[in-house]
Amino acid sequence: VKERINRLNELKKNKNVDVFLFTSPPSIKCFSGYYFNFETGPSPFHLLPATLFVAPFENSVLLLADSETDKLAAIHSGVTVIKYSGYVYEEPLQFTKDFLLQLLKTIKENGASNARIGIEKNTFPHSLEKALSEQYPGIKYIDVTDELNILKAIKDEDEIDHIRKAAHLADIGQAAVLQYAKEGITELELFSKVRLAMETAAGARVPVMTDLVSGKATASGGGNPTNKVINKNDLILSDLTPCLNGYWGDSCNTMFVGTATAEQKKIFTLVKEALETGIHTIRPGMQAKEVDAVMRKHLEREGGFGHHGGHGVGTVYHEEPRIVPYNTMILQPGMIIALEPAVYKDDYGIRLEHLILVTNNGCDILTKFNHRFEQVQ
Amino acid sequence: VKERINRLNELKKNKNVDVFLFTSPPSIKCFSGYYFNFETGPSPFHLLPATLFVAPFENSVLLLADSETDKLAAIHSGVTVIKYSGYVYEEPLQFTKDFLLQLLKTIKENGASNARIGIEKNTFPHSLEKALSEQYPGIKYIDVTDELNILKAIKDEDEIDHIRKAAHLADIGQAAVLQYAKEGITELELFSKVRLAMETAAGARVPVMTDLVSGKATASGGGNPTNKVINKNDLILSDLTPCLNGYWGDSCNTMFVGTATAEQKKIFTLVKEALETGIHTIRPGMQAKEVDAVMRKHLEREGGFGHHGGHGVGTVYHEEPRIVPYNTMILQPGMIIALEPAVYKDDYGIRLEHLILVTNNGCDILTKFNHRFEQVQ
Repeated sequence: VKERINRLNELKKNKNVDVFLFTSPPSIKCFSGYYFNFETGPSPFHLLPATLFVAPFENSVLLLADSETDKLAAIHSGVTVIKYSGYVYEEPLQFTKDFLLQLLKTIKENGASNARIGIEKNTFPHSLEKALSEQYPGIKYIDVTDELNILKAIKDEDEIDHIRKAAHLADIGQAAVLQYAKEGITELELFSKVRLAMETAAGARVPVMTDLVSGKATASGGGNPTNKVINKNDLILSDLTPCLNGYWGDSCNTMFVGTATAEQKKIFTLVKEALETGIHTIRPGMQAKEVDAVMRKHLEREGGFGHHGGHGVGTVYHEEPRIVPYNTMILQPGMIIALEPAVYKDDYGIRLEHLILVTNNGCDILTKFNHRFEQVQ
Repeated sequence: VKERINRLNELKKNKNVDVFLFTSPPSIKCFSGYYFNFETGPSPFHLLPATLFVAPFENSVLLLADSETDKLAAIHSGVTVIKYSGYVYEEPLQFTKDFLLQLLKTIKENGASNARIGIEKNTFPHSLEKALSEQYPGIKYIDVTDELNILKAIKDEDEIDHIRKAAHLADIGQAAVLQYAKEGITELELFSKVRLAMETAAGARVPVMTDLVSGKATASGGGNPTNKVINKNDLILSDLTPCLNGYWGDSCNTMFVGTATAEQKKIFTLVKEALETGIHTIRPGMQAKEVDAVMRKHLEREGGFGHHGGHGVGTVYHEEPRIVPYNTMILQPGMIIALEPAVYKDDYGIRLEHLILVTNNGCDILTKFNHRFEQVQ
């Protein structure tokens, strides 16, 4: 975490800000360890699930509604937690008032009443700016969203460890797809078994973004599972993106139930080669777009894919470095990237994905499952 | 929908605003039909999943990222949809720029460049206010959050129909708990079967908020399912709150696996009486707190419950009218309320909940399942 605070201190100097006030769940996870349970949508019992005040090398203060205090163990040591009243039933809800009271106090106690505050403008509510400006008209707000996105592209050891665990959950999910996929069950039935395998491994509910489709739907690249029955000779595309304790994993396999055509087998092999070529190409110092180009070129004559070749993964499931044709961002050790080349034909699609960590001399593959086109019998 | 626009027009007059700009997913669902898939958290491909401009009786314009256009069928007729570019891979993401361009155009075309705009201050990003004020410095922003919360407490026919369907999903979930609960399986395994039953009925993934716990954990009122094994003589508390197409259902049952004690049976009967008494008490014209009081009083000598007696349900899972000791809000036909009396002892808890609709002369029960303490053998 100290390395991240170091980088934040650099940002502080470059943007000439005094302190930061983070309001986006990904940044709050990154700099405090606290993560938000987003699976059931925004809560009616707070303005923001959490707000993080950071004066680098001095103080970090996490303001948390008391309804959100079940994940205290995840919070980094050194972060001061201040709770305010969220849910009450004996009197009207007044969480905004209680929250602002604590926030104003925190700002004052940290000498930031006239500070230049680095904020994330897109998740900074109008009401918050208004309330702060009323009390402390001297505060200046400086948006640091773009700079944060770049800063967060490099992961520290603790983050790599988090993402390894999320990648392991994805491995478990992919093994479950291979184990349970069969003719006659629905996509939702398969998804249920896959999700249970991941949730049992985690010992808790796990938010999962997924493409889990079969047959012709694979041609479009994905979609959520439905009641469609898996038929003989269907391809199944399973892109599993679980979120474990605030960090995402990512993975994709495409398999078949029954007998694949010779063309499908050829395309599978080609996509697998593209992925392997992408992985073997990666070196720190190269541009993100170069990795995209080698994979895209390998699949060009088969039609290729109309999406990114990959993307960074962390507290957001798609972040920098984006592996796309325009991106000149330099790959650096500590970046974590999902690569997902694909070929989409008129009536089927095949996509394969691994999650990798850029190292000093190449990369480590964080997802450990093998891409298999055929089920183990 | 016309009735809601009528009420919005009243609000327009009372708050002296010209038009509205809604930024919260619940309000956007209510006034446009569009709902947001929140299960995987905020998307990295838009500033807001949707933004709704409403000039009552004149024009409603929904601004939607093109990555969010899979639910167009749900959008009310009469709402103009304007798409902007969200996800792109051949060039850098510029969704904020594209979104603002369309929004500024919409405001101008609707003659609102100097308008008094009703907003939801807590979901109105600082960046949005800044961009609008720069272009149209004459705009005034008037927060209408509290008034909207009251306006939305009364549901129109189309909303009641939506919530009936969500309540039906909850019925299916409760039936699945009774069917599948057994000694030796984990809470997560049970939850998996329950969720699959609901998702199969919906034909799609369904966001579910739940308490699904067994044994001593029922004493605290709930929590998410874990790997805890369901043991003989465990109580199982199952509070199922599914979200179907943007509207929530709500329900709770408590059952046992094995043999309940005489005291537990007595408490179950008492809580059931409290719920029935609450339901039979409801009449339009009474205060919300009166319903809370009759249920709370009925359970007083057994220790009762340290939470609300109930709450409104709609595009938010806990909204007005809150059924709580302080609330003098008058119940009116069209309000939809979950009632959930409970008794919590040291080592177990029993909570029972139904979802009801306030009618002209009493109420209808929207959840149709029967609270059962014992499994059908």
